[in-house]
Amino acid sequence: MEYQIMEVKEQVLADNDRIAAETRAALGQSGARLINLMGSPGAGKTSTLLQLIRRLGKDYKIGVMEADVDSDVDARAVSEAGARVIQLHTGGLCHMDADMTARGLEALGVGDLGLIFLENVGNLVCPAEFDVGADLRVMILSVPEGDDKPLKYPLMFTVSDLMLINKMDAAPVFDFDPELAAARAKALNPGIQVFPLSAKTGEGFDDLANWLKQWLEEGRKRV
Amino acid sequence: MEYQIMEVKEQVLADNDRIAAETRAALGQSGARLINLMGSPGAGKTSTLLQLIRRLGKDYKIGVMEADVDSDVDARAVSEAGARVIQLHTGGLCHMDADMTARGLEALGVGDLGLIFLENVGNLVCPAEFDVGADLRVMILSVPEGDDKPLKYPLMFTVSDLMLINKMDAAPVFDFDPELAAARAKALNPGIQVFPLSAKTGEGFDDLANWLKQWLEEGRKRV
Repeated sequence: MEYQIMEVKEQVLADNDRIAAETRAALGQSGARLINLMGSPGAGKTSTLLQLIRRLGKDYKIGVMEADVDSDVDARAVSEAGARVIQLHTGGLCHMDADMTARGLEALGVGDLGLIFLENVGNLVCPAEFDVGADLRVMILSVPEGDDKPLKYPLMFTVSDLMLINKMDAAPVFDFDPELAAARAKALNPGIQVFPLSAKTGEGFDDLANWLKQWLEEGRKRV
Repeated sequence: MEYQIMEVKEQVLADNDRIAAETRAALGQSGARLINLMGSPGAGKTSTLLQLIRRLGKDYKIGVMEADVDSDVDARAVSEAGARVIQLHTGGLCHMDADMTARGLEALGVGDLGLIFLENVGNLVCPAEFDVGADLRVMILSVPEGDDKPLKYPLMFTVSDLMLINKMDAAPVFDFDPELAAARAKALNPGIQVFPLSAKTGEGFDDLANWLKQWLEEGRKRV
């Protein structure tokens, strides 16, 4: 007997992409820009945020959505740094999707914000599959994770606009080649911008903050 | 500074439950009843379905939604047994939710069906969290998996109406105590009905088929 085959996930992703596009359009009108910050658990997403809030917080009113399985450790630190924060408990879900992000933005309140970060769930797989409506996708690869990660998690490196190589201060004690990691990411995604840095020492963050300021100003002109 | 905490997953599940309730109401009006069949990979979901189609297919027009990561091996076998089948490729998603199920039902076409099975993705965790709109939740625990599974995956045993203990023909070679497994499930869910059986030999399936016929007839009277 004959039977149909239905690609369920494609439909789920199509719905997701529609909501993400709506979010992007709404944020564009309000003047706020959303950055989706992704990376493994422990890659340094929160400490990266703290470095960026310190450098960008004077020029831009910053909001942060902290997606986490169930703690609020990160939200507290980010709130103390001066950003407006909402903690999103995902209860075991491995990623944020566009619908959850839209609800988070509504609860955060975006009208007065210039820059919003979503700190996504710590995972190199699922977050890469879901467009949340961000204007910029930033992934963090940390030195101790290894320079082979673009080979193992190609989608994450393919969808990201920026690749931050964090924990460069630990490079001497790990067998990690930043140029090889960058070359592997660029083989998947020639346009990816690579920033070696250390959220611990602050090394490299001035370059990143300048790049982001320029990107934000170009966005403003376009509005 | 203060910050809000938002339970994202609770909102996702609330949306899911609303859609599930709509599905259940719509199926109730059409006269079809939906069974959500869950269990680990290899527990014997498809061979259980084949035994049930053989016993119930004369009295009820049966439809089957085969949710699978990417193969259609199961769909072919079930289609050859005489049921109307749709294969749902979940592309890595670990469960079916109410929305995906509603789309599957629409594609399958339910107007002429009396009984519909959803063979859920092989997994003891995520499928237990999502109400798909089924009238009956059936989980399969197979002897080789061990009688400790109710302790390790309590939600699955809590939400299921029926627990099938499959591969009883293999009980002599495994250290599996079916009474202990049943007692552990009933400690979580006193109303759970337990059926020891073997989809390989057919043992125990007449009892299960009779129970299901009675359940289906009671459902018919209620409509």
